[in-house]
Amino acid sequence: MRNILEYDSVELSQNGKDLIILDQSVLPNQEKFLHLTTAEQVFYAITLLKVRGAPAIGIAGALGLAMCMNRFKARNLQAFDKEFLRVKRYLYISRPTAVSLMVTLDRMERCYYEAVEATKDMKGETAIKTIRERLTSEARAIKLEDVQKCLSISEAGFSLLKPGMGILTYCNAGHLATSRYGTALGPIYYAQQKGYMPKVYSCETRPMLQGSRLTAYELTKAGVDVTLICANMAADVMSRGKIDIVFFGCDRIAANGDVANKVGSSMIAILAKHYGIPCYSIGPVNSIDFNTPTGRDIVIEERPSFEVTDMYFDKPVAPKGIKVYNPAFDVTPADMLTGIITEKGISKPSQLAKLKE
Amino acid sequence: MRNILEYDSVELSQNGKDLIILDQSVLPNQEKFLHLTTAEQVFYAITLLKVRGAPAIGIAGALGLAMCMNRFKARNLQAFDKEFLRVKRYLYISRPTAVSLMVTLDRMERCYYEAVEATKDMKGETAIKTIRERLTSEARAIKLEDVQKCLSISEAGFSLLKPGMGILTYCNAGHLATSRYGTALGPIYYAQQKGYMPKVYSCETRPMLQGSRLTAYELTKAGVDVTLICANMAADVMSRGKIDIVFFGCDRIAANGDVANKVGSSMIAILAKHYGIPCYSIGPVNSIDFNTPTGRDIVIEERPSFEVTDMYFDKPVAPKGIKVYNPAFDVTPADMLTGIITEKGISKPSQLAKLKE
Repeated sequence: MRNILEYDSVELSQNGKDLIILDQSVLPNQEKFLHLTTAEQVFYAITLLKVRGAPAIGIAGALGLAMCMNRFKARNLQAFDKEFLRVKRYLYISRPTAVSLMVTLDRMERCYYEAVEATKDMKGETAIKTIRERLTSEARAIKLEDVQKCLSISEAGFSLLKPGMGILTYCNAGHLATSRYGTALGPIYYAQQKGYMPKVYSCETRPMLQGSRLTAYELTKAGVDVTLICANMAADVMSRGKIDIVFFGCDRIAANGDVANKVGSSMIAILAKHYGIPCYSIGPVNSIDFNTPTGRDIVIEERPSFEVTDMYFDKPVAPKGIKVYNPAFDVTPADMLTGIITEKGISKPSQLAKLKE
Repeated sequence: MRNILEYDSVELSQNGKDLIILDQSVLPNQEKFLHLTTAEQVFYAITLLKVRGAPAIGIAGALGLAMCMNRFKARNLQAFDKEFLRVKRYLYISRPTAVSLMVTLDRMERCYYEAVEATKDMKGETAIKTIRERLTSEARAIKLEDVQKCLSISEAGFSLLKPGMGILTYCNAGHLATSRYGTALGPIYYAQQKGYMPKVYSCETRPMLQGSRLTAYELTKAGVDVTLICANMAADVMSRGKIDIVFFGCDRIAANGDVANKVGSSMIAILAKHYGIPCYSIGPVNSIDFNTPTGRDIVIEERPSFEVTDMYFDKPVAPKGIKVYNPAFDVTPADMLTGIITEKGISKPSQLAKLKE
């Protein structure tokens, strides 16, 4: 069995003409690598959650755009320009809530215009070749920067660990959701490589089961000692002294340190506080939205009842027509968190302003 | 649609020869009433969770035993005696953890010996007829007493409610789990009938989904306004001010007021305390085990990993061979509960000794 850290879930082939992704929608039952070669394939891979996790989506968008331009047979610069804008705008709307996707695609567009400017005196064919090379290396740079951020995050989180610690994690903020290593799972992989042998408890995370389908899968593949529980067993394992620290990701952090993350995270943080267990939310600095003053200002996406009553089941598990409340995220109040870990280190939730630069 | 309170989930036919149960294992997709006519059918109905909930199992055992004796073609009293003991001992082991089953079957045995004594001067055929009548009415009395207890519990719990209150409940301690009305759901039905229109949130309760399959089903059938959530959304609905009070059942209460109930109950109680929401555990007095000093002395049953990774799903949702921790119950510390509601009224968890008589 290959260690999962030996391959990435989103990768551009060496010749730049295939976007290779591990299909997350069929995990853990199948490990299927898809070779995507058209904008439409990239679009649907994102829409259908074949690639998921904010950083991973952003990277897939950038590498996917470069791949499309490497494959496009351009008659001339004008056709190349038209195609670039078409693909960029098309991928831009594949997952409207993933800000990271818009950030990386906008960065690709800036790179494109700089390349056009820099090649304006070249012959059409040479210019296109140069622009392609610039786009490809920009997309690869985006991914490498994310790898570097994840590494810095992993080291910062690792500084809190001791050998053999029990770590509880929620949802999936791991290798699959990022370029490599992950955010909340990064310190765990780092600790594992240092021989710390952490004992991880992964909460299955209803309704989409990212904790059992993805986190349990990727930690197992990396040889980490992981135990799956239902999230409603978290208080039990905490009360038994099995948990020394809690790590979960973040989708968006308000300026006051309130954290929006997968629904249930606030419950985990409240339980950790009750049992005196340190609890950290982990993600890159660009998850902090300084324009959002508090968690109350974050609009929480409500998702369809189908996910709770039918998805993954062989038959519906609730009476037909039942009213369901299915928020995708909840807000953990800043005072329930011990700290927030970013690539800049460990911050008190009340002191994020320092990271603004 | 018939209101669920118009029929019971466990019933003896008028002639005493059929035990009629609503098959809980196929809810909510099918409403199937089974007519059980042999000891073997009763045994498997209990083992396979076609009838579940401690009070309901106890009643099914007693009514089932009476049914078997009403059907048994006895050549003589000796044969009748042999069959009674066979069926009683057989049903006794159908669900070893359900104390209520042993309690009701032992009571049926006491009734049997009293009837044998009372009929010892009668002719064989007349004696058998009289014993049958006594057993049948004892079993029916057991059920009626449970109905009465549930009613007293419902009234006691109702005294805490105001019109339009938001009530959160966990797992299923309702009409299906008892003779009628339920324990934790009893006050809700009572309030509904008084026109209080409670707004109930039912937590789906992983891994066995009693909250979606059973509680959402039976409240819907009674016309109660019920919203299904995953248990990891409980903190979210509490933080939004949607919950005024929490009601859940109890499997066993220690002398100090610690409550063992479906795993996740302690989590709900800790969250309720955090949000300043009153939280009650509800059940009959005989759930209190005065021989068990504290919750630490209650042995918690661990169940197979299959329930978390495969049950109800169309494909496994976790990697093969994953380690799973699946406790069936957890212990809510007495100080997390506002009170314990029994047929004797509302008690402080620290003052259960008063109920000992």
